[in-house]
Amino acid sequence: MRFPVIAALLLGIAACATPPPRGTGDLGLVIERAAGRVMLIETSGRSSLGHIEGLGDLSHASAVFSRDGRYAYVFGRDGGLTKLDLLRARIERRVIQAGNSIGGAISQDGRLVAVANYVPGGIRIFDAQTLEPLSVVPTGAKVVGIADAPGNRFVFSLFETGEIWIVDASDPRRPQVRKIVGVGKQPYDGFITPNGRHYIAGLFGEDGLALVDLWAPQAGARRILDGYGRGEEPLPVYKMPHLRGWAVAGRYIFLPAVGRHEVLVLDSVTWTEAGRIAVHGQPVFAVAQPGARRVWVNFAFPRNDVVQVIDVAAMRVVKELRPGRAVLHMEFTPRGEQVWVSSRDDGAVLVYDTATYAELARLPAQSPSGIFLTSRGAMTGF
Amino acid sequence: MRFPVIAALLLGIAACATPPPRGTGDLGLVIERAAGRVMLIETSGRSSLGHIEGLGDLSHASAVFSRDGRYAYVFGRDGGLTKLDLLRARIERRVIQAGNSIGGAISQDGRLVAVANYVPGGIRIFDAQTLEPLSVVPTGAKVVGIADAPGNRFVFSLFETGEIWIVDASDPRRPQVRKIVGVGKQPYDGFITPNGRHYIAGLFGEDGLALVDLWAPQAGARRILDGYGRGEEPLPVYKMPHLRGWAVAGRYIFLPAVGRHEVLVLDSVTWTEAGRIAVHGQPVFAVAQPGARRVWVNFAFPRNDVVQVIDVAAMRVVKELRPGRAVLHMEFTPRGEQVWVSSRDDGAVLVYDTATYAELARLPAQSPSGIFLTSRGAMTGF
Repeated sequence: MRFPVIAALLLGIAACATPPPRGTGDLGLVIERAAGRVMLIETSGRSSLGHIEGLGDLSHASAVFSRDGRYAYVFGRDGGLTKLDLLRARIERRVIQAGNSIGGAISQDGRLVAVANYVPGGIRIFDAQTLEPLSVVPTGAKVVGIADAPGNRFVFSLFETGEIWIVDASDPRRPQVRKIVGVGKQPYDGFITPNGRHYIAGLFGEDGLALVDLWAPQAGARRILDGYGRGEEPLPVYKMPHLRGWAVAGRYIFLPAVGRHEVLVLDSVTWTEAGRIAVHGQPVFAVAQPGARRVWVNFAFPRNDVVQVIDVAAMRVVKELRPGRAVLHMEFTPRGEQVWVSSRDDGAVLVYDTATYAELARLPAQSPSGIFLTSRGAMTGF
Repeated sequence: MRFPVIAALLLGIAACATPPPRGTGDLGLVIERAAGRVMLIETSGRSSLGHIEGLGDLSHASAVFSRDGRYAYVFGRDGGLTKLDLLRARIERRVIQAGNSIGGAISQDGRLVAVANYVPGGIRIFDAQTLEPLSVVPTGAKVVGIADAPGNRFVFSLFETGEIWIVDASDPRRPQVRKIVGVGKQPYDGFITPNGRHYIAGLFGEDGLALVDLWAPQAGARRILDGYGRGEEPLPVYKMPHLRGWAVAGRYIFLPAVGRHEVLVLDSVTWTEAGRIAVHGQPVFAVAQPGARRVWVNFAFPRNDVVQVIDVAAMRVVKELRPGRAVLHMEFTPRGEQVWVSSRDDGAVLVYDTATYAELARLPAQSPSGIFLTSRGAMTGF
């Protein structure tokens, strides 16, 4: 007669597999590329909440978040698209959607996830809830620099053909494509300004960047920072810089120069060069700290053990940190009081207080690369 | 022998009072001022999740959110500070902290809540977790326009004495105060730009606004839009406009003029007037839709049944909506695809698709006023 009691208790406990309630606004994940897993993190106590395994090839992986902050969508190099439930710490769904993907975006309304593919070239659009495939936009070229834009649009660049495409996915089974051709040789990455208005693509094949005003896409692309000096010195390019991030600080946009030990400063009012700042090495990411006062920069191999901090008012480097070997990524908490930094070769994620530069935490991680916080789910262009 | 089974089952169920997991990124609340309660809402399905009662006098109430998105802090007119648990839909803690409060702010690190008081004048700083009082900053004047700024600072204006104070609460039991005096007569509200750099106070006692660069507070306040025309026409002022909100669209800041049927456009690069836009009535809120393409405006009694939409590129009104009687507030989802509008006298909260202006939902509510979404928890100045 005790069995029913135990059975009922077990039933109750099973029903209670429900995790205790917690907010999702301070959650995030770290890509552990060598292990094919992610580490779940929270930024209030600055701790690890565990790991989710089985995500495949995560070299160069990135992530976007659902509008409620509960789910992450991880884009893997092997074409895997994995939806993670951060509250239950498990894979919710996973599909292999193409041969080789390099990133993705989530639509303004949160209902669509677009994956950008190298092989085959093009983007694939999925239902964010079910991962059901809805449509394919073939491009015949590698897709780079995909970003979401207002109006459930996705904007991206095509490496081989030098084009920028704007895809309106309001009707996700029949996406409408606007093509801007002749933007320049070999766009290698792109980003959208935080207000969702301007898309900027970096060019590898020539000196300069391409700018599209999404309020007037019919006007095409405009060349900016033409002849800034890429290729002037025959420095080998150790790693392509990344443009995606909050590189916008007030009226200025800070851009890593290709192949040069410089960060370029673009005036977003006049769209001309406002200056350039000498830095430690070839910059990879230049990311504006929320609050817009400082821009943090990491660097390509072999100078990748350093992070430099630029003061926006002074327009010069004011601080240098050495978080560890192979610093691959930096992510700020949304109001800017902390920055999370991954040191791949020291197997650590470091958390700094941005006001004092004090090290607040150091979490062990297996070859950590990208760090992504759920607050991205509330932002345009992430 | 069945009792133990039932008891055990009940035990299991009780342990399971844990609500099912859900993200907090799409949650929010609507102040139901006449009922002393709030309605919980979620913006993915655009529905009401219930109510929390017992919040006291909620006329002119506002709210801020914890960095994890789980808790709201509601500032009531009766001096009540109430911490709500949005996931459990209940009051977590509540204190009556002063005689008459008009708003508050949460610090950059999320650890402090500051309440601005009319009676007695001053701000009180509380531990965000426990609501333990930590310190008091008396001002001898009504505190208006409080906003958080980077560096765990709070910035606010003093109505009677015409000052702007910057309180550094990094050591919350010993806050450091910097006073900027002589900013102008009767500042009535203020806000901080989204990047956390500039604080702007509107003046009721004279024509113009006061601007403080928080990167250089020692420079004091600067008068901007001097002589824009307040008082030029002896229109009665039916309701003081509000400045707090995303009134910043690209380089332009849209400000409701006091007493005039105009929205002023301020150029944030030159800090001069860039234009003025004729509108339906005396504007109360001018709020930039995320995506920066449009600014939505509501109006004072007796013209408060209309909302107008300004196109930022065209600098004119392009749409007029009539959501209901006494439209008191508008809140955008963080990526701007929806706007939530409260119609107090029709007892309804309306949700519009910002791309099509289609009405997506209409929720009954008791005298709804302010609408606040958890995404504010990730923003500076809210």
